[in-house]
Amino acid sequence: MIDLWYTENHQEDTKFSIKVKSHLHSEKSAFQQIDFFESDTFGKFFTLDGLMMVTEKDEFIYHDMITHVPMAVNPEIKKVLIIGGGDGGTAREILRYKSIEKVDMVEIDERVVRLCQKYIPQTACKLDADPRLCLHFEDGLKFVQDAKDASYDLILVDSTDPIGPGEGLFTYDFYNNCKRVLSEVGILINQHESPYYDSYAHEMKRAHSKIKDTFPIAQVYQFHMPTYPSGHWLFGFASKKFHPLEDLKADAWNAFGLHTRYYNTDLHKGAFMLPTYVKESLENA
Amino acid sequence: MIDLWYTENHQEDTKFSIKVKSHLHSEKSAFQQIDFFESDTFGKFFTLDGLMMVTEKDEFIYHDMITHVPMAVNPEIKKVLIIGGGDGGTAREILRYKSIEKVDMVEIDERVVRLCQKYIPQTACKLDADPRLCLHFEDGLKFVQDAKDASYDLILVDSTDPIGPGEGLFTYDFYNNCKRVLSEVGILINQHESPYYDSYAHEMKRAHSKIKDTFPIAQVYQFHMPTYPSGHWLFGFASKKFHPLEDLKADAWNAFGLHTRYYNTDLHKGAFMLPTYVKESLENA
Repeated sequence: MIDLWYTENHQEDTKFSIKVKSHLHSEKSAFQQIDFFESDTFGKFFTLDGLMMVTEKDEFIYHDMITHVPMAVNPEIKKVLIIGGGDGGTAREILRYKSIEKVDMVEIDERVVRLCQKYIPQTACKLDADPRLCLHFEDGLKFVQDAKDASYDLILVDSTDPIGPGEGLFTYDFYNNCKRVLSEVGILINQHESPYYDSYAHEMKRAHSKIKDTFPIAQVYQFHMPTYPSGHWLFGFASKKFHPLEDLKADAWNAFGLHTRYYNTDLHKGAFMLPTYVKESLENA
Repeated sequence: MIDLWYTENHQEDTKFSIKVKSHLHSEKSAFQQIDFFESDTFGKFFTLDGLMMVTEKDEFIYHDMITHVPMAVNPEIKKVLIIGGGDGGTAREILRYKSIEKVDMVEIDERVVRLCQKYIPQTACKLDADPRLCLHFEDGLKFVQDAKDASYDLILVDSTDPIGPGEGLFTYDFYNNCKRVLSEVGILINQHESPYYDSYAHEMKRAHSKIKDTFPIAQVYQFHMPTYPSGHWLFGFASKKFHPLEDLKADAWNAFGLHTRYYNTDLHKGAFMLPTYVKESLENA
């Protein structure tokens, strides 16, 4: 049997590798290199420009944490904007709430959506399959520039790293537009990189510095994401009004009756309790 | 320059690799294969039977979490038994408390201690350098069998995985003896493996099942340990009397005035808030 390994360099001198049973697909889209693989431990997974995006084994962690945290702080959320998230996992998870009325999902690269629909229906199952969801294949930065004021209660930035197509999603221009198109109770969740390796911590600080300049409430929360560099990953929680802990509505969230494999309302509280070195790094950002 | 990589198989089909600047030392002791390396990102690190034990970059995480959690629950701890921990990091950290009167450290393999003193003084600095610390080079299982009742307020099991020399430290016999040699307010902290990969989760459940049979209070807490498989690692907290959250004495701990890079008393609370899949796995153990 062929000995084929996918490898990601987490640092120049640090690698993470997964043995591949099959290289299912490879193409260069207008925006990036896209590859799909199959493995024993992680099931199917895909990469953009060689970087791990989603595996069937642990996508539930990322998608639980990006969606349920804001929904437990404001269970009244009705209108949602997803930027990126072409695999569909974020859309799938937010659409589990019957109270959600409308989701605009803006993915720059239609090929990611179409290939995930073909190879990873576990995450893509709701794309083109729920009338509340509207797909827009365009630049997220441009989309929020053009969107009307106060159109959304929640924005979920499910982006790649701030290199390549995701770059514009880590700018003051983008965050200011997010603030403008959010309602008075609006919440912004963004992919916030990682504190452990210096190169990622640098991007974490850059993002946090801009978000806390833009929003009156700006917190960071952590989770265990084993297939991302260091396994220590962060989301940012920014809001005009709600504090992620003081305004947590655990009873209301539990009343939704959703079973989640990673998220629970105790974990919600724990996720904002950061290690001292991470807190200090963010305070100095 | 030579292209030399240390690789650990986290699963049969999953590898983590670090580029090595220098293979500082290699020997087969009476108990295990011992290797020391130097790298850019992680500084110096060492492995036992090829498995990662300690790196200079992230040892503070493990050693903060094994020592400060029990000290914040019972700041009156005076007598400590460390099983394993040959690198010295656990001893270094617990000896930062001036109130600690006596530490017995039982390491089966003297070569680990001597080589860490030579190559990783960052962790080994207090070994042979603090009169409160007594080193015993013998089997931890045998040591607790022979120890008198109620000799210690705290036992820290800083062991390898339950394969090889560490195997006896995951048995009913060992846990029962720990209970016997602990005082009425005694706490046992043990290396509790990881929930993510099946092979580690299996050991996590086996250990938890035995500990909760033995102690009236048995909880598990988590932390981010990037150089261990999956980066999601656990310690067990078992006690005859104290609950790790209900009996947390945050003010008393903060009064010690220790600066810690990972631990803080908010993180203490958060560490016990486990993901749903981990809680379910432990409940069914």
